[in-house]
Parts: sequence; C-alpha cells; structure tokens
Amino acid sequence: MNLIDILNWRYATKKMDPTRAVPPDKVDLVIEAARLAPTSSGLQPFEIVAVTNREVRERIREIAWGQAQVTDCSHLLVFAAWENYTAERIDRMFDYANEVRGFPNEGWENYRQQLLASYPNRPAEVNFQHAARQTYIALGTALVSAAAEEVDATPMEGFDPDKLDDILGLRLRGLRSVVMLPLGYREVAGDWLVNLKKVRRPRAQFVTEVR
Amino acid sequence: MNLIDILNWRYATKKMDPTRAVPPDKVDLVIEAARLAPTSSGLQPFEIVAVTNREVRERIREIAWGQAQVTDCSHLLVFAAWENYTAERIDRMFDYANEVRGFPNEGWENYRQQLLASYPNRPAEVNFQHAARQTYIALGTALVSAAAEEVDATPMEGFDPDKLDDILGLRLRGLRSVVMLPLGYREVAGDWLVNLKKVRRPRAQFVTEVR
Repeated sequence: MNLIDILNWRYATKKMDPTRAVPPDKVDLVIEAARLAPTSSGLQPFEIVAVTNREVRERIREIAWGQAQVTDCSHLLVFAAWENYTAERIDRMFDYANEVRGFPNEGWENYRQQLLASYPNRPAEVNFQHAARQTYIALGTALVSAAAEEVDATPMEGFDPDKLDDILGLRLRGLRSVVMLPLGYREVAGDWLVNLKKVRRPRAQFVTEVR
Repeated sequence: MNLIDILNWRYATKKMDPTRAVPPDKVDLVIEAARLAPTSSGLQPFEIVAVTNREVRERIREIAWGQAQVTDCSHLLVFAAWENYTAERIDRMFDYANEVRGFPNEGWENYRQQLLASYPNRPAEVNFQHAARQTYIALGTALVSAAAEEVDATPMEGFDPDKLDDILGLRLRGLRSVVMLPLGYREVAGDWLVNLKKVRRPRAQFVTEVR
C-alpha cells in the first residue's frame, strides 16, 4: 500500500451503486481506523453512528440536500462529537487509561487535574468546537482506511445538524453531529466527478519553508 | 502496509532524538499526504509552514509550554488555516480547477455562485472555525503518512496561537495557526509514553449501529 496512490485513488464519490454493499469486515476496518486516530489529550470526544437502516437513511437524505449517496451507500457513518467536556467524561477516560495501563501515572494524574480545572469551566460551544475538530482527524484516518480497502466514501458536511441530531437522538446522549461519511461503491456511469482530474493547489502555494 | 498496524505503531512522541533528522524525501511525503487530503468544497483553506530554522523553533517552544519536541524534532510543520473565506480565495480555487480540468463545468460554476453568495457573508470567526476543521483532516492523513514512513510525530495544540501567528507572520498572509506537527525520531530512553499501552475506548463505547 502506497499512501499517495491511495489518496489519489479516492475522491468524493458523487454516485454510488445502490446494489453493492460494503462487506462488514471492511466497514469494521474503517471504524477501527477512526477509533485508533489520536485526539487531544486522548479524550476521543466523539462517537460514530453507523446507519444501515433504509428508512432512517431516507429521512437523513431529506435533511441533507437530497444527496443520493446517503441512501445509495450501504453504510452511513455519522461522526458525532461531545456537545461539551464534563468532569465525568474526563474522569472516565483518565480512569480507563489507568485501568488499561495497570497503574496510575503521576504526570498523567497531574494532567487530569489541569484538564478538570479548565475544560468544564469553558463555554459548551468552545468545548464542542474543540471536540468537533478532533473528529476530523478520525475522518482523515477513516478516509485513508476506506480507500486502502478500495471502498468509496464521500465526506459530507451538507446536512442540517440539528435535524440529524433529532433523527438519531444524539442530544439525549450528549452528542452533536459533525460530519457524515457514506461508504459504498462508485457507479461510474452516473458520477460527474469520477473522470475529472483531482485538483489540489500546487505545492508552492501550499507549503512555505522557514529554514 | 497495514493501516491498523501503522496507527498502532504511532503515538504522540514525548521525547525526540535531537541528533536525528528526518530525510527530506520523507518530509515531502508527509506534506504531500496533507496536500492530497480532501477539504470542504475542495477549497484547501490552509497552508503548511515547515520550520527547520533552529532559532525560530526556540522562539516557538517558548510559547508552546516549553515542549521539547519543538526543538528536538528536525521539521516542525505548522498547519495554518485561512482566517476567512473571501470571494477572491473562492474564485481563485474554482478558476484553478477549471484550468486543471481544461474546461468549466456547469454544475461546478453554479456551486461556485452558491459559495460566493454565502461564505463571504458569514462572520470571519465562523469561516475560520470551518477552515480549521478542514486542516484536521490533513493532520490525520499527515499522521498516517509519517507513521507509514516510520517517522515519529506529535500532534500539538498546546501553544499560544496568536503568538505563533506573530512569530511566523501568519496574519499578514490571512492565516491563523491551528495545530503543529513536529516530525522526528523517538528517543526511547527519555520518553515516558513510549512503553505505555495505547488507550482507546472499547468499540462498544465508540460505535452504535442503526440497523
């Protein structure tokens, strides 16, 4: 696997083949790549809701500009971030780290106290925005994973997040939808983008060096 | 290359070996992985500043909690997002896409008009937050790229962004620093984290299915 080839192979698929389903083991790999993504302080402040239910996806498509990938895909991954950082959520993650590692770590415990003294006191919106950013790291690793498995995927921000939260009952779980990733297979005949060149700014306009 | 192995191999390196430099071709691959990352509407609303200059990195360390990776790494990648979406920036990207693809596309041109009618009218802060999220997708692909090359990397949000903007002159270029990624090689002896188990929430607490 060559990552550059993989990134060049993938594209934001505009038409998926509704007759082809992604095998569950490949979906599992994509979710695992998202689960293993790093996040700030290791809090993993988001969850994934994997929607295969047809009716639910039809309702989601209605609040997502009618984008057909939502129903043509076989698995719709919804990335939903914590609506806030709470002491309980922070403690749960630090306690769990101690459990996995088998012992508490002094530096780690000091760091826990720093977070507890700051995050829960910030406005919920600030915390949500921070959590939302972390989900995009996982979106990046999930995209690579899908493409590595030759599964097509379309990162989607074009939906009404409040309505998606309602449909999936996310607020009741302290979550807010951030981005969606339908997984499926491209239907070349109906896809206006598939044969167009990938466009990225030239390197000279993307990176500067401070030597 | 197995992506899951790669993601398990990487960790937020706490101590880098200041005597080992990452070869330029590997740094180029990491930057290329970031350049190829998808972004909302393909706008690529960020740039990377690659800092190797020792003095500049020393100044950055001072406004980054003294974190030693900033100076122990060989290449400090600073991801800086557009401080705002302007009509000029949007037009430049759409024009460039037409140039690369060799022809204008009607749907694409309609989409340009939609963006021009909305993004530049939103508060700059809303646009910056949206641009900042996009940089995290590229952070995700860059992290995978580094690990695939067995290069260590430490995603870092712990710095004063306004001061970093000053040091690198980012505001003059319409950019705001978002996240840093030092690239280097782990120094196992001095790294408290390297031998600790990676901690991620169990899958059952990370994903739910709607069947």
